[in-house]
Amino acid sequence: MTAPVELYDTTLRDGVQREGLSFSLEDKLKVARRLDALGVQYVEGGYPGSNPRDQEFFARARAMTWQGATVVAFGATRYKGNRAADDPNLKALLDAGTAAVTIVCKSSRFQVREVLAVAPEENLAMIGESVAFLHGHGRRVFHDAEHFFDAWKEDRDYALATLRAARAAGAEGLVLCDTNGGTLPWEVAEIVRAVAAEFGPGAPGPTGGAAVGIHTHNDAELAVANTLAAVQAGATHIQGTINGYGERCGNANLCAIIPNLKLKLGLDCVSDAQLASLTETAHYVSELANLKPDDHMAYVGASAFAHKAGYHADAMRKNPLSYQHVRPEVVGNEARILISELSGRGAVASKAESLGLRLGTGDEVRAVVDRVKQLESRGYQFEGAEASFELMVRRLDRAYVPPFELIDFMVMVETRGGRDMLAEAMVKIGIGGGDREERAPGAPGANGTNGTNGPAGRVSTRTLHTAGEGNGPVNALDAALRKALVEFYPEVQEIRLTDYKVRVIDEGSGTEATVRVMIDSSDGESSWTTVGSSPNIIEASWLALADSLEYGLQRVLARRK
Amino acid sequence: MTAPVELYDTTLRDGVQREGLSFSLEDKLKVARRLDALGVQYVEGGYPGSNPRDQEFFARARAMTWQGATVVAFGATRYKGNRAADDPNLKALLDAGTAAVTIVCKSSRFQVREVLAVAPEENLAMIGESVAFLHGHGRRVFHDAEHFFDAWKEDRDYALATLRAARAAGAEGLVLCDTNGGTLPWEVAEIVRAVAAEFGPGAPGPTGGAAVGIHTHNDAELAVANTLAAVQAGATHIQGTINGYGERCGNANLCAIIPNLKLKLGLDCVSDAQLASLTETAHYVSELANLKPDDHMAYVGASAFAHKAGYHADAMRKNPLSYQHVRPEVVGNEARILISELSGRGAVASKAESLGLRLGTGDEVRAVVDRVKQLESRGYQFEGAEASFELMVRRLDRAYVPPFELIDFMVMVETRGGRDMLAEAMVKIGIGGGDREERAPGAPGANGTNGTNGPAGRVSTRTLHTAGEGNGPVNALDAALRKALVEFYPEVQEIRLTDYKVRVIDEGSGTEATVRVMIDSSDGESSWTTVGSSPNIIEASWLALADSLEYGLQRVLARRK
Repeated sequence: MTAPVELYDTTLRDGVQREGLSFSLEDKLKVARRLDALGVQYVEGGYPGSNPRDQEFFARARAMTWQGATVVAFGATRYKGNRAADDPNLKALLDAGTAAVTIVCKSSRFQVREVLAVAPEENLAMIGESVAFLHGHGRRVFHDAEHFFDAWKEDRDYALATLRAARAAGAEGLVLCDTNGGTLPWEVAEIVRAVAAEFGPGAPGPTGGAAVGIHTHNDAELAVANTLAAVQAGATHIQGTINGYGERCGNANLCAIIPNLKLKLGLDCVSDAQLASLTETAHYVSELANLKPDDHMAYVGASAFAHKAGYHADAMRKNPLSYQHVRPEVVGNEARILISELSGRGAVASKAESLGLRLGTGDEVRAVVDRVKQLESRGYQFEGAEASFELMVRRLDRAYVPPFELIDFMVMVETRGGRDMLAEAMVKIGIGGGDREERAPGAPGANGTNGTNGPAGRVSTRTLHTAGEGNGPVNALDAALRKALVEFYPEVQEIRLTDYKVRVIDEGSGTEATVRVMIDSSDGESSWTTVGSSPNIIEASWLALADSLEYGLQRVLARRK
Repeated sequence: MTAPVELYDTTLRDGVQREGLSFSLEDKLKVARRLDALGVQYVEGGYPGSNPRDQEFFARARAMTWQGATVVAFGATRYKGNRAADDPNLKALLDAGTAAVTIVCKSSRFQVREVLAVAPEENLAMIGESVAFLHGHGRRVFHDAEHFFDAWKEDRDYALATLRAARAAGAEGLVLCDTNGGTLPWEVAEIVRAVAAEFGPGAPGPTGGAAVGIHTHNDAELAVANTLAAVQAGATHIQGTINGYGERCGNANLCAIIPNLKLKLGLDCVSDAQLASLTETAHYVSELANLKPDDHMAYVGASAFAHKAGYHADAMRKNPLSYQHVRPEVVGNEARILISELSGRGAVASKAESLGLRLGTGDEVRAVVDRVKQLESRGYQFEGAEASFELMVRRLDRAYVPPFELIDFMVMVETRGGRDMLAEAMVKIGIGGGDREERAPGAPGANGTNGTNGPAGRVSTRTLHTAGEGNGPVNALDAALRKALVEFYPEVQEIRLTDYKVRVIDEGSGTEATVRVMIDSSDGESSWTTVGSSPNIIEASWLALADSLEYGLQRVLARRK
């Protein structure tokens, strides 16, 4: 297939029907500019008849220069009983000053009767007069055939009559909408094929020569498939939204449709460079929308090319196409290897390599895998806590010298006599492990209390014993530990904890439950995440905290060398 | 179509390949029980060869009673060079003690060469011997044909040879996997049709009579469509996961597939009552997975039947099927009307009705719509802040007497001489509006500072002037306000603020930006959300806070009557 297709984005109109989504005027303009850069041919900017912000959008858009996009205003047919020339909605559409407009029209007898409450013939007159009015004022007109697929099943002759009314009045595009999102792909294909035969580019007769469009919704999780089915059946005008934003379950997701068209159907709807900007565009729009991106979205999600299963990760090392349907770079995304309890040797070796750690022998790899499995059975999870993973690998190397070692800690939280709650901590640590004596493995004091803090057997040259307080126990521990470290490592002052998360692993187990703590830290230049797990929340917090500072300080030590 | 289909859930095995997802043993058992209740025929419990937790799962599952589900263990073919009888993975599969097992087998020459690194004939032997070994030990065997669709495109004869090897050795099901998730629906249909013709229930010859299965991934956002295409082409065994959990972009989502099969294809794969438990099941599993449910998921999402556009909401009042492809009750979900800047009179009237507020005349509805649009242009958003919406409607009624009215407030935040940061607030309010004098609209003191706190013109009988402090400015304001209210309304002590969220509306605008504050509150019996918006974060917080307490107290007043 090489028929040209055109992309029509409706993120700024139908997309903002999504619950919780609204854009400021400035953000709407930013999104429109980005869509233009992505290579979308039509950018629907809003519904000028419905709210003042959209009117302002079109005023601002008129003053801007566009690379290739045509800005489109959206509206409805004239109100029943109005003359088109007197209809305020149609006037607002003209006032938007766009070269093209889209008007929503009823295709279904059921909708005309129940919702519009007019006679079927009056609806045809509303369509024809509205299109003719806009066309007569020099506008390119797209006819948005609402509920078209349901209408076809109900009364296909009437559905076709609405298209003929629009076409006869000058509509250049007939956009078939699966408004309720419940149509199946083979139904879409059959109906689009029939419509394209009468109205499509190659169709003979007075109604031929139009662009047949497709606009789907995701209520049966079929919006992308329905769009592709329509293209296969002859549709050339494709509507959708970035990230699939839209009312209820969303509109057809252009972030899946564009790569499917280009990479699977061979339709050059955007350039290679534009396709490579897709992931960034998806994240940019979600950022402006203030919505967390869906990590699992096809092509553009952060997890779209993330490999967890041990034998998948192993195969990926052998050949990157073994568990990827396309190369992530072509859509601007990247592959990632995750570390998890299911990971085998391949994943661990890949991960270690990507962190710049050399695991020379199969035995070393096996030792890391065993350690991961052991810790994960105790509630650890290294996905997203790569700093703790890296420390664990380093600690298995007998040449590794940690920047400090825990000796003792104590935390006290109390409230007394109506005063504020008090949190205090005491910490004893050793620093300067270069001068080591051997100690029996498992002897108290030399390592982290539940085992991530490396092999026992190291004793430090200098012992420090400090106390601190804070607004809570972890904050107090952090304060005491830093007090001890700052004399040896003034750089510790640059390390900040930026987030602290707690998750109960086994919720059914009450106060016995294991908790997992994750801490995000930053030194201003980079950031890292660490994990600790224990049935004692203080201990879990301590482990994540100690890892955070150890990770930051071993980078300081590496720089000093 | 009325051919029977069977559902096979792999949430506990392939689903947990999702980044960030892991279940405890107890949670795995809970999910399995819920899947059994949903009517799934096969519950794949895990990969006993890969980790100890899955071995424990099968030990526990053997001791349980199942309504109708068969628990299935998953594994791989024997390792290259092993005899089947000596292979530890196959032994772990037998040890799981399940009636049925699934083994993953390579279908693709590319995979066999690059990843397995064995000759094509050795792979056929690995398949045949592994299936025969398990079948010989009395297990029902499903052959999981990895990368089948890619394998078919590469070398269909070899792909078919792997199926024949499995079938000849006793496999009862041949599950065709789109492992990399990149196949298109019409390709799936064509390939499944060809496989079903040789191996399906009605196929003649020695290979016929098998269940042809489908297992898809969502990397092109086509997993559900590909599953339905396979069913149309003759597949009768359907694999997927709850909420579409799975590696990368996820597996085929049973929460969309089940209602599509039953409601659209007329295949009675679960009972009506089971289908009505689908939304609850989806949320239950996401709760155990500790993952936020996707509100926009087809059928089961909280927004799946939420209507925002003004004319959609209006049409929904006229006929609930006008913008819904199915009735939400059949899947255990419900319709909701959202209030937003795009809402017209229909949405406002519906919303007011659902809150038990009567808006008698068109003028009253119009006054509310105008007020919503005015406030939304200043950064308000009433979606999710129904308490503020309700108060706004009540305040437009001249007979409404608010429980208190703001007169003045002052907040001070300072840090000095190394001491803790200090936050103090002073509040002056009037209480007892029953005895009112008229005051000029707009006169200072009688209403909330940016206009949500009802019409001006009310003066109170008693003025209270209090101060409070807190760990931050809003906390201090809250303290001062409660101190004033508690004498008149001791019930205020039961109202707690449970969450406080801030969002910057116009991020590009620096310190001039408008912020929106939302506060969740609870009185132990029910909870509500309020909103405030202003360029001054203290003012925005005050507005949301005052709404929170006013909403709680007007319910108290209503109860006193």
